[in-house]
Amino acid sequence: MKLTHDILLEAKAAAPALLVTGTETKNDALLRMADALIRNTDAILAANAVDMDAAKGKISEVMLDRLMLSASRIEGMAKGIREVAALPDPLRVIKRVERPNGMVIEKTAVPMGVIAIIYESRPNVTSDAAALAIKAGSACVLRGGKEAFHSGLAIVSALREGLQEAGLPETLVSLIEDTTRESARELMLAVGLVDLLIPRGGAGLIRACVEEAKVPCIQTGTGICHIFVDESADLEKAVRIIENAKASRPSVCNAEEVLLVHEKVAEKFLPMLKKALVDDRKARGEKPVELRLDKKAAAIIDGVPAGERDFDTEFLDYILAVGVVKDVEAAIAHIALHSTGHSEAILTENEENAALFTRLVDSAAVYVNCSTRFTDGGEFGLGCEMGISTQKLHARGPMGLEELMTYKYIVKGNGQVR
Amino acid sequence: MKLTHDILLEAKAAAPALLVTGTETKNDALLRMADALIRNTDAILAANAVDMDAAKGKISEVMLDRLMLSASRIEGMAKGIREVAALPDPLRVIKRVERPNGMVIEKTAVPMGVIAIIYESRPNVTSDAAALAIKAGSACVLRGGKEAFHSGLAIVSALREGLQEAGLPETLVSLIEDTTRESARELMLAVGLVDLLIPRGGAGLIRACVEEAKVPCIQTGTGICHIFVDESADLEKAVRIIENAKASRPSVCNAEEVLLVHEKVAEKFLPMLKKALVDDRKARGEKPVELRLDKKAAAIIDGVPAGERDFDTEFLDYILAVGVVKDVEAAIAHIALHSTGHSEAILTENEENAALFTRLVDSAAVYVNCSTRFTDGGEFGLGCEMGISTQKLHARGPMGLEELMTYKYIVKGNGQVR
Repeated sequence: MKLTHDILLEAKAAAPALLVTGTETKNDALLRMADALIRNTDAILAANAVDMDAAKGKISEVMLDRLMLSASRIEGMAKGIREVAALPDPLRVIKRVERPNGMVIEKTAVPMGVIAIIYESRPNVTSDAAALAIKAGSACVLRGGKEAFHSGLAIVSALREGLQEAGLPETLVSLIEDTTRESARELMLAVGLVDLLIPRGGAGLIRACVEEAKVPCIQTGTGICHIFVDESADLEKAVRIIENAKASRPSVCNAEEVLLVHEKVAEKFLPMLKKALVDDRKARGEKPVELRLDKKAAAIIDGVPAGERDFDTEFLDYILAVGVVKDVEAAIAHIALHSTGHSEAILTENEENAALFTRLVDSAAVYVNCSTRFTDGGEFGLGCEMGISTQKLHARGPMGLEELMTYKYIVKGNGQVR
Repeated sequence: MKLTHDILLEAKAAAPALLVTGTETKNDALLRMADALIRNTDAILAANAVDMDAAKGKISEVMLDRLMLSASRIEGMAKGIREVAALPDPLRVIKRVERPNGMVIEKTAVPMGVIAIIYESRPNVTSDAAALAIKAGSACVLRGGKEAFHSGLAIVSALREGLQEAGLPETLVSLIEDTTRESARELMLAVGLVDLLIPRGGAGLIRACVEEAKVPCIQTGTGICHIFVDESADLEKAVRIIENAKASRPSVCNAEEVLLVHEKVAEKFLPMLKKALVDDRKARGEKPVELRLDKKAAAIIDGVPAGERDFDTEFLDYILAVGVVKDVEAAIAHIALHSTGHSEAILTENEENAALFTRLVDSAAVYVNCSTRFTDGGEFGLGCEMGISTQKLHARGPMGLEELMTYKYIVKGNGQVR
C-alpha cells in the first residue's frame, strides 16, 4: 500500500505542471481522460464486480445501487468529463486596476494547488471530482469509501492514461490507498500539502473535519432544510412546492426536512398537506410521507407526535417534521436555532415578509415561493458542482469551478517604490 | 470582569440589527462614532495614560510609541472612521441570473455575522476594526493586547455612544475584558458564535490559530517577502527598489526580508547593493542594513555570514538575507520552500521570466519591477484594510470591505418545482 503522505508529496510536486500549461492542454487531457474511461470499460466493470461481491449483504440496497457500475454509467461519467472540458477556463483576471503611479494590478483567479476530496461509495464521484479539479488547475487527491476501492482504483488508472497521453504528470490524479479513518485524518492534518479539503459525506465526517482539520476545509452537504408557510401563502401552490421539496428525492441534501406553518393558516392548510402528502400519495400507490407533528399541529391533523430530536434531524427519508409558529419572526428564530445553513424557503404573497425572511435567514440559499430542491450547481447555471457548501468562508452553496479557485494579485511596474 | 462567552452571546444577538438596517443608518452610526471619539478625547487620553504608566519599562520604546495616544492621533482615528463611512456599502447583488423556468437567482454579498479580531497594542486598531466591521454589516468583538486594555475600553465606550445615538445596539462593538491567552483560545473555539476570526499579530498567534481554531479564521500578516534580481534586471532600478522594500519601513509585513540574486549578475550587482544599503546610508547618517550573506554572496562582498535560520526569519528590522541562485527556476524553488505567501517580486527585463515567476510563485501578491511595500489596502485602491491575508481560502492579500463579507443566494419564484 502506498503511503498517504507519499501520495500527497507526489500531488504537490505535480500541481505546478497545471500552472504553466494552457487551457487547451487541460481540455485535451480531459477529453483523453473521458476516452480512456470508455476504453477501459471492461477493466472498470471487473473491478466494480469485486467491490459489489464484497459489499453484498453488508450495505443497503440503496447503497449497492449507488456502488454499481454499468457500461452506460461509465458512458455517463465520460460524458460528465467532456462537459467539464467544454466549460470556460476559470483561470482569469477578475479585476484590473491601473494605479496613479502607473502600476497595473491584476486580481487573478488562480488554482488552489492540491485539492483533496473525501467521499463515500459512489464511484462516479471519482471521475467528476478529478475532472473539476483538473479544469480548475489543481492536482486532485481522492479518498473514497472502502466499498468502492477497486472501482476507484480502476477509474483513476484510466484517468491517468488520459493525463499521460496529454503530456501531463499522471500524479495529478491520485486515489488514497489507505481506506481507514487514519487516512482521512492525515488529509485533515496535511498542512502545506493539501490546499483545500472538501469532505463530502455524512454529518459525522463533516463534524470530524470541523473539529480536527488544520488544512483549509469546506463543509458540504448536511441539509436540515426548512419551508415556512406564511399567513398569506397561496396554499395550493404551497402544497405542490412542499411535496416537491420533500418527496421528489428525499435522500438528497436539498430536500425539505422541516415544515413551519403560520398559526393563522394552520387549520386550513394542514389538512390540505395531509391529503396531498399522505392520502393522495397512498391512493396513487406512492410512498406516503410520515408527518411528525408538534403539539399544535397534532391538534389539527393526525400523525406521529414529534420527538425531541425531530426538528434537528436530517431524515433523508419520507419523513417531515411539522410545527406551527406564531409568525414570520418566530419562523426565522426557529430556523436560526435549528438550520444547518443549507436551504430554506418562505411561501408568501407578502413582500415585506419575504424581504425580512431573505435578509435574516442565514443560509446558503434562501427561497421565496419555490422548492428548496433547486440548490444545485446545474440548476443554478454553474454547469457543474463539487458539492454544496454550508459554511460562510470562501464558498457558499453550490461549488462550481469558480469556487475551486483562489486568487492572487499580479502587479506590474517599471521601478515604482513607495 | 464580563465573561467572554457572554460578550459573544450579546454580539450574536445584536448582529441581526445590521441585517435589517439600511446603508444610511450604518453610515450615520459611523459618523456618530467618529464624533463620539473626539468628544471623549479627555477620557480616552486619561485611560491611555494609565496604560502608558503601567507599560513603561516593560515594553520597548517602539511598542510604547505604538501604544501612546494624543489628541491628534484620536483625530486620526475619527478621520479613519469617516473615511470608512464614505466607502460604498459592500452589501450588493454580485450576480443576477434569470433561469429558463422563470426563477431569479441573486448571488448577494451579505454580512458574516460576528467578526472577532485578535490584535496587539495599537489602540487605533480598535476603532479601525470596529468601523470596518460595522460597515460590513457585522457585529465586532475585539480582543486587544493587555497593554492597551484601558485605552481600548475607553475607545469602545465612545464608539458605543455613537451606536446608541444612531439607534443601534451598543453590543455591536465589544471589547473582550479577559486579556489572558484563555480568551483568545475561547474565540478560536466559539463555533456558532464567531463567524470570522482575524488574528492580527505575530507568528505565534497566527500559528496558534491555525493549530487550534475551530471557527473560520484568516491568517494575516506574517511576511517573509522575497525579491529576485534576474540576470536581465535593470540594476540601478533594482538597487532603488530593494532599498525601498527593505529600508523604507522595516517593521511592516510587506518589507523585504530575503534577496535572491542571479549568479550571472551577482559579481556586478552585490557591490552596488552594499554601497547603497550600507555605505551610502552610513554616509547620510541613516541606519545601514545588515547583510546576511550565503556563501556565494560572501565571496563577493563583505557582510555577516548567514545562519541556519536567516532565510526563514521575518526580521522586521534593518537586516536582509542575501543569497545567490542559479536562475529564475532556482529562485522560484527557493521561494516555494521559504516564503510565507505574502509578497514576492522579480526584477527583470525578460518577459518570459516575469511570466514564469508570476505564474509559479504562490503568494498573495507577486510583483514585477516594483517594491513589495505596495501590498496594502490603500495602495491597491481598496480604500481601507483589515489586514493582509496570507492564506488561499476566502481572501488573499489586503482585506477590504468586500473580503469581510460572505454571500448567499436569494432565489425568487412563483411556484417553481424541480
